[in-house]
Amino acid sequence: MSLTIKLRIAPTISHFDLNRKTQKNPIISRTPIYHSNKLSTSLLFRTKKMAASHVVKSSLIEPDGGVLIDLVVPENQRELKASQAEGMEKVQLTKIDLEWVHVISEGWASPLKGFMREDEYLQSLHFNSLRMKNDDGYGSIVNMSLPIVLAIDDATKEKIGGANDVALVGPDQKIVAILRSIEIYKHNKEERIARTWGTIAPGLPYVEEVITPSGNWLIGGDLEVLSPIKYNDGLDSYRLSPKQLRKEFDRRQADAVFAFQLRNPVHNGHALLMNDTRRRLLDMGYKNPILLLHPLGGYTKADDVPLDVRMEQHSKVLEDGVLDPETTIVSIFPSPMHYAGPTEVQWHAKARINAGANFYIVGRDPAGMGHPTEKRDLYDPDHGKKVLSMAPGLEKLNILPFRVAAYDTVAKQMAFFDPSRAKDFLFISGTKMRTFARTGESPPNGFMCPGGWEVLVKYYASLQTEEAKATVSA
Amino acid sequence: MSLTIKLRIAPTISHFDLNRKTQKNPIISRTPIYHSNKLSTSLLFRTKKMAASHVVKSSLIEPDGGVLIDLVVPENQRELKASQAEGMEKVQLTKIDLEWVHVISEGWASPLKGFMREDEYLQSLHFNSLRMKNDDGYGSIVNMSLPIVLAIDDATKEKIGGANDVALVGPDQKIVAILRSIEIYKHNKEERIARTWGTIAPGLPYVEEVITPSGNWLIGGDLEVLSPIKYNDGLDSYRLSPKQLRKEFDRRQADAVFAFQLRNPVHNGHALLMNDTRRRLLDMGYKNPILLLHPLGGYTKADDVPLDVRMEQHSKVLEDGVLDPETTIVSIFPSPMHYAGPTEVQWHAKARINAGANFYIVGRDPAGMGHPTEKRDLYDPDHGKKVLSMAPGLEKLNILPFRVAAYDTVAKQMAFFDPSRAKDFLFISGTKMRTFARTGESPPNGFMCPGGWEVLVKYYASLQTEEAKATVSA
Repeated sequence: MSLTIKLRIAPTISHFDLNRKTQKNPIISRTPIYHSNKLSTSLLFRTKKMAASHVVKSSLIEPDGGVLIDLVVPENQRELKASQAEGMEKVQLTKIDLEWVHVISEGWASPLKGFMREDEYLQSLHFNSLRMKNDDGYGSIVNMSLPIVLAIDDATKEKIGGANDVALVGPDQKIVAILRSIEIYKHNKEERIARTWGTIAPGLPYVEEVITPSGNWLIGGDLEVLSPIKYNDGLDSYRLSPKQLRKEFDRRQADAVFAFQLRNPVHNGHALLMNDTRRRLLDMGYKNPILLLHPLGGYTKADDVPLDVRMEQHSKVLEDGVLDPETTIVSIFPSPMHYAGPTEVQWHAKARINAGANFYIVGRDPAGMGHPTEKRDLYDPDHGKKVLSMAPGLEKLNILPFRVAAYDTVAKQMAFFDPSRAKDFLFISGTKMRTFARTGESPPNGFMCPGGWEVLVKYYASLQTEEAKATVSA
Repeated sequence: MSLTIKLRIAPTISHFDLNRKTQKNPIISRTPIYHSNKLSTSLLFRTKKMAASHVVKSSLIEPDGGVLIDLVVPENQRELKASQAEGMEKVQLTKIDLEWVHVISEGWASPLKGFMREDEYLQSLHFNSLRMKNDDGYGSIVNMSLPIVLAIDDATKEKIGGANDVALVGPDQKIVAILRSIEIYKHNKEERIARTWGTIAPGLPYVEEVITPSGNWLIGGDLEVLSPIKYNDGLDSYRLSPKQLRKEFDRRQADAVFAFQLRNPVHNGHALLMNDTRRRLLDMGYKNPILLLHPLGGYTKADDVPLDVRMEQHSKVLEDGVLDPETTIVSIFPSPMHYAGPTEVQWHAKARINAGANFYIVGRDPAGMGHPTEKRDLYDPDHGKKVLSMAPGLEKLNILPFRVAAYDTVAKQMAFFDPSRAKDFLFISGTKMRTFARTGESPPNGFMCPGGWEVLVKYYASLQTEEAKATVSA
């Protein structure tokens, strides 16, 4: 599918009242954004702490480990490295392995410099964090909740033998990277799955599609990527690296960046909370909060809306003025999706630190899904934000838990759920939304902007056509 | 079974050359104890770090959180508290719940003040650690790898209703404790098991005997224990609390305490490494290293040797002079056993910090067992010591990984395994040892002291008699 996506780029705000020191250290309102539990205290302390700091930095938040990792080989060395790689044993990458190469190479996982070696893997599995090494062996802690690993099979391990370095070969059979000072260790899939997902029930999408078919060994090492990873799908220009995003935030003179991770179309409830967050940041004293609307672009499960459709839908949401293009950056987060709930939401937040966002919005059941074999959510819908608010290495990030939005049948618009008149609210789940779109039925007026809705209807109609064709030809 | 155990109490070393400052801060030899990998460096840095500190303290290592928790109600308040408890809703404890009450009440789990509330439970499950709260909300990290929780069923939850405090009732139907400011939250057993054990395979002993039959809710709160927990099994005098152990180490003027956790009989390989550890500590400059031989006394699986038999066996090992009573303290660690490998070994080490030990010995596959449904170890035998050496909150503890000991058929004694003449060594597993004792066959000479071996033979003979009786009466 080829399509043209129009995302307006906001102009530089040239007349912005620039007083960097005031901007970076506003007087923080003590009004917590989230009222229901300890999280508000946590938020309070975080903002208080931030307000106490008086250092003006070139960006809003330091990348994990202090330095943004960039593993793309400089152009003048590419030829040399490529010819070195030719002589090495080859390791074949899957499409999803390549997405991880992309993620690591641009520093989303800073300070990670390659696929995990065993000591990193074990820390990630057991502690959801890595200890940095410094002179006395006890460095600071960075968050690292998902094992970012590369699996190989017995034959590949055999072939590699005692080599120090290997070449990584993309799905198109071209060499894309070198992995240096490698370490090969056992891939205990059962343990990895249990500790990452908190279940080993059959039917977890990433497990079934990625882990189960993969080899019994993991290979870690330092990554050198021969040239920036591109997908040539018409969307590469929206794949801004953390370095590019940081530059863009500086260019816009943002004094707060709030990231919103999503893998679904944007409805007006999302828009409400993003706009509400901006208003609250302004109330707190920030002058130019920028929204990073950051759809996940890597692997998603089959019944999620594909990236290109989502990008078109997001574009309409900005065109229709539901979100303000002046204060919004839409970019693609290249990570694959694990659907690992409280474990994965930490990864989603941590990666946005590296991209320069100092506020992170978290909602109900982030990165969650239904239990694959039981009729319930796989995770307690509140655990994601609780775990995120306590996660080691994420102390410097301001977590913004949000109240649930639902369709207010009286006001005929999406609104924050008011438990005192619960019966007036209609919860429209993703599944329900998909059913509406599939059947051609319209959702309640005010649920989503018409332009965005049209994109979805078109997508689901095309799916039905394809399904019909498949049935006919079968 | 009733038995008399003779454990000689070492006399006070009255002529000990006391120069506390030199003792506490010896010049540390740079010889690492463990040679094979990064752990030696880690050890090196730890001891170096310790040597750099010049504070003379009343004990060798601070309890987690800085204060040793003691939740036993002072005698003059017991009557009052007991009558308060009478009026509260009752929660029935199992035998193993009571072991946890014991563990928490004496401060083994410091800074934990009761059964975990949800925020502690989630941190334990996801991060194997707890963040202490201080004024700005960001305190230090303490290790906490096992969820220490109390499960209740639907009916009990219903009965408790909106109460703030409940009374805990022991298996003998007497009230043993109060749990205050309670919080009740969901007990997602599948997730708890998967994240704690890294598998949900059927046949995990603690899961089958404790978790599966337990209720669907967890109740957390602050514990007040009405009087010290006693078992009246003839072994209570060996159940020294962390406070008592710390006092004993001070009385003996120990300048290093190395703890050895075990749930099996002591063979000469164990003795070799304990004696070798002492020698190495002396080489490092310590003047009076004390061994804490610390058998686990709570729940163990059915085919483990019971506590009373083990205590009698340990007694013989000291009587036979295999371990030196002058520099050894034998005491019982009251925790139940999870058999959760790398997750549990952190608990075993952390609890010994609270008991005042500043060195912890760790071997192959600590707290491990065979996979319940597959023909392999449940955990990679090296993961325990690796995870332990990297665990958050255990930085102040000196981890002493040990080399594998096996029976040297040439020297006819237990010796450190020498891979250059691997064929001379015989590995005698716990299973093999049990088979020897069951069949009345003698193990190789030098495997275990005769007095200790006799205890085991007697135990297994009694088992066979009981089995035979059971067969006859069936």
